[in-house]
Amino acid sequence: MRELPGERIVYFGDTGRVPYGTKSKQTIIKYVRGDIRFLRQFDPKLIIVACGTASALALPVVEREVPVPIIGVLEAAANHAVAATRNGRIGVIGTQGTIASGSYESRIAAANPAIQITSRACPLFVPLVENGHTHSEVARLVTAEYLAPIRDAGVDTLILGCTHYPLLRDVIADYMGPGVTLVDPGEQTAAFANRILTQRSMLADSIPHEGQYQFFVSDSVENFASLGSAFLEREITETLQQIEIEQYERDTNGEGIFDDPKGRPKDGG
Amino acid sequence: MRELPGERIVYFGDTGRVPYGTKSKQTIIKYVRGDIRFLRQFDPKLIIVACGTASALALPVVEREVPVPIIGVLEAAANHAVAATRNGRIGVIGTQGTIASGSYESRIAAANPAIQITSRACPLFVPLVENGHTHSEVARLVTAEYLAPIRDAGVDTLILGCTHYPLLRDVIADYMGPGVTLVDPGEQTAAFANRILTQRSMLADSIPHEGQYQFFVSDSVENFASLGSAFLEREITETLQQIEIEQYERDTNGEGIFDDPKGRPKDGG
Repeated sequence: MRELPGERIVYFGDTGRVPYGTKSKQTIIKYVRGDIRFLRQFDPKLIIVACGTASALALPVVEREVPVPIIGVLEAAANHAVAATRNGRIGVIGTQGTIASGSYESRIAAANPAIQITSRACPLFVPLVENGHTHSEVARLVTAEYLAPIRDAGVDTLILGCTHYPLLRDVIADYMGPGVTLVDPGEQTAAFANRILTQRSMLADSIPHEGQYQFFVSDSVENFASLGSAFLEREITETLQQIEIEQYERDTNGEGIFDDPKGRPKDGG
Repeated sequence: MRELPGERIVYFGDTGRVPYGTKSKQTIIKYVRGDIRFLRQFDPKLIIVACGTASALALPVVEREVPVPIIGVLEAAANHAVAATRNGRIGVIGTQGTIASGSYESRIAAANPAIQITSRACPLFVPLVENGHTHSEVARLVTAEYLAPIRDAGVDTLILGCTHYPLLRDVIADYMGPGVTLVDPGEQTAAFANRILTQRSMLADSIPHEGQYQFFVSDSVENFASLGSAFLEREITETLQQIEIEQYERDTNGEGIFDDPKGRPKDGG
């Protein structure tokens, strides 16, 4: 919203099936296919997979199935970290799924194979954030447990590789010390989206008067409102609606995204 | 398994959509309907909703839709607590969904309206257990945070109202002190199932030679094997298979459980 103030944004949060971070690749691919089928109804010019786990596990498979530009949160974060490090040592934290995939490692190695990477899954960070433990003694203890090997490795750059982790930024920064750059994939990805749209001359040329932001979730809107507001740093006053995400994945045979439930013709993409 | 050694048990764990504890009533009802449709294929003589949240939020609705005996974990636990308390003060802990439902309160009040109940949601307990934090300093701090008002209320009986909480029994017992009885709904429910089957003369009369236990999950079997073994206190060597749970909830219009995907005729139940 800050980076691209003129764009309409349709958000879908799969709150009925989160967290993604602990689930298998096969299940995440199935869910992401449904998520994208839902979003394609709005005919987007760009799709952002705004979840570290989905970006790591599903994007490499589903990006070939979508005829519009689709980006995840890994690419911009990895590139920014490679540009930011001075000592050639980068840390990566994320969900179990993201870390097990090795996706950050392979992207960073592709950019600069000399970089040393220390990575670690932090499975308690999401529940801590979702339960308000962003600055507590418990948050500090868990941070120290997870980040000890990363601090010991002497990294000067740390990728906060999951949507929720930037909310723990203060505690993580305290533990890592002032010499370490923290990379927020969300910020970097918004800037990357701006560059893509600018290069393709696809930026909106005026701010829409109404309906600029629409929010959809797969669990009840009540459960989403408070956590969503914590992330957005303001109340959600726009359209917020629950949908049945299962109806967008009737194709469970791995045939990809094009066979959508509305019976649209396949396109060439 | 210990309580009913002669019975065949078919287990379904909805690992592709857990946790249930943070999701809305409407979503839990939808999921539980699918879960039960899946289990009904095995023609069970008794169904146990072995989840505190599903028992609290969905069972009161779905029990009318199922023509076989179906029990949750609340009833036996509440009755045991009412029988166990000496000072008339009972504590209840559970997920956000379970505690918000007030289900334990109403069951206990129905048994004895004079009992004082202090309840508290403990949303970090499930992720702590799932990540091995059952005896750590973090587990102790979180336990103290959640249980302080319950200890202060002077309860002499505490219901551990979620599948995962008995794995924190040691830390909870240390915090609550030796005078407090901890009630495990799983144990009480297994004993209750035994009483129901005995009363109805439905107990198995011999131990099956093979295929006694079957395990099904909705996420990958690999992700389930280690946590499942932690709960079972042994390796899972039996059938363990992933299924597509979504295909059992094609009916999303609230028509109940009878319209199952195999096209079986409705029965009278």
